[in-house]
Amino acid sequence: MAFKSLEELRAACLDLPAGNEAAQAAVARRQDTLTKPQGSLGRLEEIAGWLARWQGRDMPKLDRVKVIVFAGNHGVTAQGVSAYPAEVTVQMVANFAHGGAAINQLARAASAELDVIPLDLDRPTGDFTQEPAMDEADFLAAVSAGYDAVDGNLDLVCFGEMGIGNTTPAAALASALFGGEVQGWTGRGTGVDDAGLHRKVAVIEAGLKRHSTALADPLQVAASLGGRELAAIFGATLAARHRGVPVLLDGFVCTAAVAPLARLHAQGLAHALSAHVSAEAGHRRLLEALELKPLLDLGMRLGEGSGACLAVNIVRSALECHARMASFTEAGVSEG
Amino acid sequence: MAFKSLEELRAACLDLPAGNEAAQAAVARRQDTLTKPQGSLGRLEEIAGWLARWQGRDMPKLDRVKVIVFAGNHGVTAQGVSAYPAEVTVQMVANFAHGGAAINQLARAASAELDVIPLDLDRPTGDFTQEPAMDEADFLAAVSAGYDAVDGNLDLVCFGEMGIGNTTPAAALASALFGGEVQGWTGRGTGVDDAGLHRKVAVIEAGLKRHSTALADPLQVAASLGGRELAAIFGATLAARHRGVPVLLDGFVCTAAVAPLARLHAQGLAHALSAHVSAEAGHRRLLEALELKPLLDLGMRLGEGSGACLAVNIVRSALECHARMASFTEAGVSEG
Repeated sequence: MAFKSLEELRAACLDLPAGNEAAQAAVARRQDTLTKPQGSLGRLEEIAGWLARWQGRDMPKLDRVKVIVFAGNHGVTAQGVSAYPAEVTVQMVANFAHGGAAINQLARAASAELDVIPLDLDRPTGDFTQEPAMDEADFLAAVSAGYDAVDGNLDLVCFGEMGIGNTTPAAALASALFGGEVQGWTGRGTGVDDAGLHRKVAVIEAGLKRHSTALADPLQVAASLGGRELAAIFGATLAARHRGVPVLLDGFVCTAAVAPLARLHAQGLAHALSAHVSAEAGHRRLLEALELKPLLDLGMRLGEGSGACLAVNIVRSALECHARMASFTEAGVSEG
Repeated sequence: MAFKSLEELRAACLDLPAGNEAAQAAVARRQDTLTKPQGSLGRLEEIAGWLARWQGRDMPKLDRVKVIVFAGNHGVTAQGVSAYPAEVTVQMVANFAHGGAAINQLARAASAELDVIPLDLDRPTGDFTQEPAMDEADFLAAVSAGYDAVDGNLDLVCFGEMGIGNTTPAAALASALFGGEVQGWTGRGTGVDDAGLHRKVAVIEAGLKRHSTALADPLQVAASLGGRELAAIFGATLAARHRGVPVLLDGFVCTAAVAPLARLHAQGLAHALSAHVSAEAGHRRLLEALELKPLLDLGMRLGEGSGACLAVNIVRSALECHARMASFTEAGVSEG
């Protein structure tokens, strides 16, 4: 899929499948026959129904689970918004390739495949205090790259990101889409000090001012203030919806990347579960704004899709219970 | 181990190993060299250090993980405190044996062995509104059965319980050990209605009144107001400490069962992590009283060790990251 205009992309965001309600209802009916007090598996029961709805199957499966990490570089790092130098993005992509990063271990522990997709790392986006991060063609290319990364044969997909400086565009997107004080959306990322944090806030305020005419359109927000890996996650999440693949969302950057879809369509993220709430300031608030309730809250703030991947085994466990528990009748257990 | 007196048991509760601080410190040092911002794996880093401390190894392992479910029956069910009939305990033990319960699926998903240990199911404990739940010999036998169930070759153990009516003794223990209104510790268990909930509160109040002279001693509380499966979990948790096996605690009943150990020794539960907070009323409050911070909060209220078992893959993921991530030097990544 190569989106040729913002309007073509917008149309794909507005015309979203509603999921298979009958499959979700079939799961709920089966859950109530299984040997446990009704509802006592809590969110595991909800997860089974969600999988069924968005896979469009009465009995969901999890044979193919993939984590896709998109990497991008950011012109705004010139403003001193990160604790790490920009070359770390490409170094970490090499670390992914050699199996040395957290996400390599987490993907293996989740029995998930891992794809890493670097996006023009030698060509950082524009510094959004000076110019749009991406022009329309650049933005659409990144969205399309994300869209094409999602195979409709997947049963579940996690998206992750690597991009030194990318909590700055993420906080800019959240500020632009949901308003309020920039400070409330801005955190320390990989660990900037107080001076760095103040710089981030000022940089984001400058970006919002410079691109004030773009703020009414979520797609223009994503192009002007975002980044390639954020745009790719946006496109990939859109593709997952159209291709019937449920999504686990990772942390602050990932959630900010998909927020424009929720702003364009009230049910835009219905096929996505929030896997975890990050320790990055602003993520909890962003999840509340999106009415997403995270599965995990473990103080993580690494990115790479690490939180999403950690939740895969929760989803697997939910499905195992749903698919393989005995009913009261089968087990000869008296009902309450 | 057969404990012959409350005093012999008390001595074992007071003389607890402190864990291997050097191993925990070695984990913290290694964590800070790995290719991630320091501390960015949040509680996964804490878990790796906790495993090292309580296994007594610089590099922990998780080759043998076991879930042990203890089952017991309760005389107090005669007072109408449960939504299910008492025969369901033995029916569910059969369901465990045939692989049809939630814990069977969750144990498999966690690559954990499952042991089920029924404790005199044909001989319910005494109705604590009329007599002590257990006399000293009965109580010590159940504690000893739990103690003997824990093999020192395990790398991690989860305890679970099955016992129709057992949220009533659990709430009685919490009330006796931590005080305050009984109502605040008492929930709906498998799902009693409002009238049943009022009965539970009245039954527990009657038990506390009848056994008022026992309330100053945590061991006498556990004998007078508890149950065999709770006593076994207490004994098993004590054995795990003496045998160097870290413990994942399950929900309300399991946490109430081990609370006497925390009352006897300020560090009595240091080798145990709370795996999840249950939807059963009183559990959150009990965890706060014990200063335990749960890993998961998924609205579960099933028992069987289900919440503890669900957290095993989180612990496995924490260890995989710790053991197998590359350092900054190994990966050639610039440090911040």
